Amino acid sequence: MRHTISILVSNEFGVLSRISGLFSGRGFNIESLSVAETLDAKISRMTIVTRGDDKVIEQINKQLNKLINVIKVTDFTDEEHIERELALIKVTSNPESRAEILSIVDIFRAKVVDVSPRSYTVEITGDEEKINAMTELLRPFGIKEIVKTGRIAMARSPKQK
Amino acid sequence: MRHTISILVSNEFGVLSRISGLFSGRGFNIESLSVAETLDAKISRMTIVTRGDDKVIEQINKQLNKLINVIKVTDFTDEEHIERELALIKVTSNPESRAEILSIVDIFRAKVVDVSPRSYTVEITGDEEKINAMTELLRPFGIKEIVKTGRIAMARSPKQK
Repeated sequence: MRHTISILVSNEFGVLSRISGLFSGRGFNIESLSVAETLDAKISRMTIVTRGDDKVIEQINKQLNKLINVIKVTDFTDEEHIERELALIKVTSNPESRAEILSIVDIFRAKVVDVSPRSYTVEITGDEEKINAMTELLRPFGIKEIVKTGRIAMARSPKQK
Repeated sequence: MRHTISILVSNEFGVLSRISGLFSGRGFNIESLSVAETLDAKISRMTIVTRGDDKVIEQINKQLNKLINVIKVTDFTDEEHIERELALIKVTSNPESRAEILSIVDIFRAKVVDVSPRSYTVEITGDEEKINAMTELLRPFGIKEIVKTGRIAMARSPKQK
């Protein structure tokens, strides 16, 4: 099963390496990972997406909680949450294909962020499914390059007062 | 000096841990990091933002190139490139503050992606400066939570044919 795990850590040398080692040491591949500072520059948030056996993930969560630099671990798997990632996609364009590419960009509410005589660079945000759908539509034009952030997640707010 | 380094790696257990260990072993803090699969699921791209002495970064680049799973290393520091990150910001809202928050969201071309009686969750993309500017404008309303992806980068395309 796929798990999206959010880890709040204090920023010390080696914390990233220790945490990623915990996953790889148990044969878990990290599908995507994002790390960035929070409002407090001494604290960072890591979001890890991984696939694996629920029991083993539970063990990893326990071990994460034991690490001295780990402040909080949240597994979003069973929680209502928002997931987002950002992708930059450089696609081949020519006078014949430009209009069609731009209409795909419009449909996905994406944005052209760089133009050259032979390419468009498109920025898109969304969940994995949306980004994959747009990638598949752009693929026939020729994707020169794609760079994606790791996924991030945030719990949805309760809708009742 | 700040460096944005992009590393293409083959997806094997432990590659992330080895690479982050290389930075921490030399006392480099990773400011932000993104890892995600490319179009080829066997290959991932990591983008690392770090600050440090140019000579030491050069050494790290050399060592990265020696790692068996590393396919290509690009340091964007002296190259014309696009940088982007994505943030989700949950900000306290009430009937009095809502209109003002929404006008800030508009100005930054951000998006409200979740609403509750007491909060808005806003999605914004841009470079570090833009995201910091918006964060500062929202801060007085009360930021409940902020989650950011690591930064990603892509070289700008040449403007000549």
